[in-house]
Amino acid sequence: MIETKLMFEEEFFEADIERLYELIAEEVKSGGVGYYDLPQSDVTDIKAYCNEYGLEKIKNVAVLGIGGSSLGTKAIDALLEHSENRNDKKIIYFENVDPNEIIDNLKGLDFDETLFLVISKSGGTIETTSHLKFILHTFDISLESDAFKEHFVFITDEKSPLDRLGDDLGVKRFYIPQNVGGRFSVLSPVGLLPLHIAGYDIEKLLAGALKLKESFFKREEDELCKKAIYYASGAEDRPVNVLFSYTSAFKYFNDWFVQLWAESLGKINLDGTKVGLTPVGLIGSVDQHSFLQLIIEGALDKTVTMIKVKEFANDITIPDISLPHLEKTNFINNHNFSELINAQCDATMQSILDQNVPVDMIEISKLDEESAGYMIFYYELLTSLTGKLLNVNTYNQPGVELGKIILKKKFED
Amino acid sequence: MIETKLMFEEEFFEADIERLYELIAEEVKSGGVGYYDLPQSDVTDIKAYCNEYGLEKIKNVAVLGIGGSSLGTKAIDALLEHSENRNDKKIIYFENVDPNEIIDNLKGLDFDETLFLVISKSGGTIETTSHLKFILHTFDISLESDAFKEHFVFITDEKSPLDRLGDDLGVKRFYIPQNVGGRFSVLSPVGLLPLHIAGYDIEKLLAGALKLKESFFKREEDELCKKAIYYASGAEDRPVNVLFSYTSAFKYFNDWFVQLWAESLGKINLDGTKVGLTPVGLIGSVDQHSFLQLIIEGALDKTVTMIKVKEFANDITIPDISLPHLEKTNFINNHNFSELINAQCDATMQSILDQNVPVDMIEISKLDEESAGYMIFYYELLTSLTGKLLNVNTYNQPGVELGKIILKKKFED
Repeated sequence: MIETKLMFEEEFFEADIERLYELIAEEVKSGGVGYYDLPQSDVTDIKAYCNEYGLEKIKNVAVLGIGGSSLGTKAIDALLEHSENRNDKKIIYFENVDPNEIIDNLKGLDFDETLFLVISKSGGTIETTSHLKFILHTFDISLESDAFKEHFVFITDEKSPLDRLGDDLGVKRFYIPQNVGGRFSVLSPVGLLPLHIAGYDIEKLLAGALKLKESFFKREEDELCKKAIYYASGAEDRPVNVLFSYTSAFKYFNDWFVQLWAESLGKINLDGTKVGLTPVGLIGSVDQHSFLQLIIEGALDKTVTMIKVKEFANDITIPDISLPHLEKTNFINNHNFSELINAQCDATMQSILDQNVPVDMIEISKLDEESAGYMIFYYELLTSLTGKLLNVNTYNQPGVELGKIILKKKFED
Repeated sequence: MIETKLMFEEEFFEADIERLYELIAEEVKSGGVGYYDLPQSDVTDIKAYCNEYGLEKIKNVAVLGIGGSSLGTKAIDALLEHSENRNDKKIIYFENVDPNEIIDNLKGLDFDETLFLVISKSGGTIETTSHLKFILHTFDISLESDAFKEHFVFITDEKSPLDRLGDDLGVKRFYIPQNVGGRFSVLSPVGLLPLHIAGYDIEKLLAGALKLKESFFKREEDELCKKAIYYASGAEDRPVNVLFSYTSAFKYFNDWFVQLWAESLGKINLDGTKVGLTPVGLIGSVDQHSFLQLIIEGALDKTVTMIKVKEFANDITIPDISLPHLEKTNFINNHNFSELINAQCDATMQSILDQNVPVDMIEISKLDEESAGYMIFYYELLTSLTGKLLNVNTYNQPGVELGKIILKKKFED
């Protein structure tokens, strides 16, 4: 399904790899980090709720959530939107508090045909509560109304203020396990509920993640450990990690990766040192005409992961048309666009390797629920492994709290 | 219109600033770098062509172009799409060679209502010619047909293969000045033609750029020089330059900036050293829930530019609704969303400054053609200045050629 290949010229020691397996095993045993359990989630409740609700009556899902509450769903939906299971329900994201974006989102949105998912782990995210208030106002919905109960679902921590609000008002709630952080939560109801509504087979999504989990805990994923060791040990010399995905389908996966990597690893570590790795998400072939020049001729401070998808959901052929004066482009005639983009991926990788930039390749046979689940868990595990080696708390985000306090003070003064 | 403020704790020397003005003056005098002349472009030909063509008969503009041929137009259109001049013509971008993206682009596209702009400086870009061939095939258009002449325009270098093709077939062409590189070309017909068709006032766009140009050549832009000096002299210690824009409107401007910065400055410099600066584009407040943690607690290897827009085209108010259990979010009730996002910008900036990360702020009173043109020229000039100091050829991109050669070989073998 997915093949990976490291092309680093580096010696790895068995003992370092074993130690990493141990550290993660300990972390799992501690019970403090819940995302490891998500591939075995029970989705009965999600499916039963949707069945009972009657999804045929809605045309839209509005996701009110930001950061970890939206990026994972966006990532997986973009990976799979051309696959056969995707139905025609629209997912609308209320993320930014940019007024123009909110107005655009509401244009033509029919309340009666929409299910609103309010997603916030803490419950009190200022963006999400502001969106909620504005939507209530726009459609003139009172909190105590039946319309509210019928068209809203809360996804939050048990006993959070949002949970209590839902309890008071009789709104359906799904819980994010307490020990699962927002950016690791896509395989919880946070992602599973909207993705199920959109038609995807969420059991296969979990099965894809489980496949990697099982193989990792059987200690059969030495390559993943090596990659983490390489990234962490090179954090000073190679502080930039590029993900170069050769299909537009990875657009939001890149954003999800950027959040996961930056927010998990950018930390004052347990020795008091500021550490971190800078993630960059690129899309090929587009970014061959942009960032690639910096990879090839810029400072050797980067690693590059190439992602290639062998089989596209749809494929089309470059017609055998010879354009006068442009005959030198005829070499690609009669080939499929998928062949072109994949050959570009290979050619770019070769040109990067020639510059002694460390590269690894992830080759996905086809984008489906299973491979998407696998890719999510692959990057979550890689993040946990690298975090261990950087000696950081991978799962918190203390640095973003100060801004929130300053914000509140600005309005209270 | 636009105010900038550097908050670097650094001493700058008058002589260094003077030297930079001199270097750019010499570059202009040499005639080798054409983008400096674009703010004074004559747009008569563009407007006359559109008048004669009769834009009322088309509903869509399809841009066939990648990298510098599309990013600038996308950037400016996203900045200004909520402004009053924007008409309802759709711009569709054929950029990537991802087959799913091409199929999506063509869904519901009516050939008769579409003007296709084929944009390629060299004329032989493989993505663009492949798109052109596929579109000809899809709509069954022969090169010699009237339909081709009526629905296609080429924007390219004079005497390029694409120009010759257009000449043979009687297709309207607009030229990119030979000495203007793709990523510096948005104020040439590359951007001006589609932006004019979309309803924008391209003369005001140029006027905004000219305003900064004139002030720079009057040597009144010391701050811009200081910023370049700070970035270039800190290239080793602070190799990452973050652009943190507090409105979703900057989404594609960020991509345009990433191309401009990475591809212009990532070079083997004239001393034979690999240099460069890594651009990162962020959107607030969304990325407060992502990359911000890395800025605050990660290694001190970044600079941050905050962009704030004072007045939004549309604004809405957060209603005075008190949600039980969530009363602590009431501080924002009765304030506008624009106030919230701008206060978030200020609060985030304060939290970044507190960590001794170098910050500067660009405050735009309102997004309109003039401020958009100014911002484009601001970043182009900053790139030229920084390139001078890094001792690179800012305007070429030799690193991306190798991949193209390898690609061709793959199909010829």
